[in-house]
Amino acid sequence: MNTVDERTIQEIVHQCLAASRRPVDLVATLSPGDLRIITGVSNRHVHLCREDLTELFGEGYELTPLKELSQPGFFSARETLIVGGPKGALTGIRILGPLRKTTQIEISLSDGRYLGVVPPVRQSGEVGPSPALTLIGPRGTVVNNTGVIAAWRHIHMDEAQAGRLDIRNGEMVSVRTSGSRALVLDNVVVRTAKDMATQFHIDTDEGNSANIQTGDIVEIVRAHTIR
Amino acid sequence: MNTVDERTIQEIVHQCLAASRRPVDLVATLSPGDLRIITGVSNRHVHLCREDLTELFGEGYELTPLKELSQPGFFSARETLIVGGPKGALTGIRILGPLRKTTQIEISLSDGRYLGVVPPVRQSGEVGPSPALTLIGPRGTVVNNTGVIAAWRHIHMDEAQAGRLDIRNGEMVSVRTSGSRALVLDNVVVRTAKDMATQFHIDTDEGNSANIQTGDIVEIVRAHTIR
Repeated sequence: MNTVDERTIQEIVHQCLAASRRPVDLVATLSPGDLRIITGVSNRHVHLCREDLTELFGEGYELTPLKELSQPGFFSARETLIVGGPKGALTGIRILGPLRKTTQIEISLSDGRYLGVVPPVRQSGEVGPSPALTLIGPRGTVVNNTGVIAAWRHIHMDEAQAGRLDIRNGEMVSVRTSGSRALVLDNVVVRTAKDMATQFHIDTDEGNSANIQTGDIVEIVRAHTIR
Repeated sequence: MNTVDERTIQEIVHQCLAASRRPVDLVATLSPGDLRIITGVSNRHVHLCREDLTELFGEGYELTPLKELSQPGFFSARETLIVGGPKGALTGIRILGPLRKTTQIEISLSDGRYLGVVPPVRQSGEVGPSPALTLIGPRGTVVNNTGVIAAWRHIHMDEAQAGRLDIRNGEMVSVRTSGSRALVLDNVVVRTAKDMATQFHIDTDEGNSANIQTGDIVEIVRAHTIR
């Protein structure tokens, strides 16, 4: 399995990140059956629908891309929001683009405690009842009670790579991290798509509990191999 | 292994906690070889030495016990402090008693990010270089740069129980949690002592990443059984 030296990979990834280049190409250099992938730790952020963007920023407003994300076509916007809950408020919360059909506020359980809500742990894009948080923008305010979630940990995987690894869209796998706070994380859902950058996405609580950061290498452990 | 129904245990533990009774006796009711133990999630807190207590609260000051902790003789105090770092400050940080030989400020990596420091992940009681945080009390201020840590996850275990389970003081084990964010946490150090309440101690990042809370049941997995 260790055909490429772990430390070498780590260094290249962090150099890519420092230079704001996407580490996608690096993944392609790993051998075809390699189960090592790159971590992306997501800080709290908001996805907006068109209607809420208008309410918060005014008629005809469009998001300004600030930085390209690892997934092709996705970006973090220059615009930020205040997110308020019953116990506290957080400022400077980044909006990610492009716009979506429904607004989603992704926070960690730590953030939830600070704000005074307990978000359900749910897959991104799934809409359902949630506690309410208030979004405050320069032109208006929106209350959302369907999209406040702690994101279910997941792996974005390129379809071709998933095929090589015999992993299906929606399959649950486990992921092993290394270091002093080494973990095996079960129930990691794999979401495959064409031309996707393969990445392991977790929130800040999960990143901190494993003491890993964006760019760190982890390894997929197939559920049936550890049971 | 499942001689006692998981849900029954869970309910009893949470009833004990709600009534502020220590769930110590419950542990004793589990069968002798049972590897299930109770979780305690530690929020950020401070242990003070005599000298710093005097500096912060004035000459001759003594802590006022507010609530007995699960470990016999330990308590959370009525007194709280402000903890300040280069990027932020947190108020109402609980002091735990009794006093110790050296001051220790236990925060999560999430707290560290908010305060602007990266605490080393280190066992409680180990003194060494650390980033600096400022403690602010009603009568004075103390800067500490040796005891700012994220606590190494650990199990407090009664000596007799450790003996039955053939676990030695200082041994590393793994712990398995269940639920949607199920984890196996490696490198959990076991610290045995006489008349200790057996408990799995983690910080809020770790609790949130596993989506478990104080009182939840986890299971010790011996390192050599999962490798």
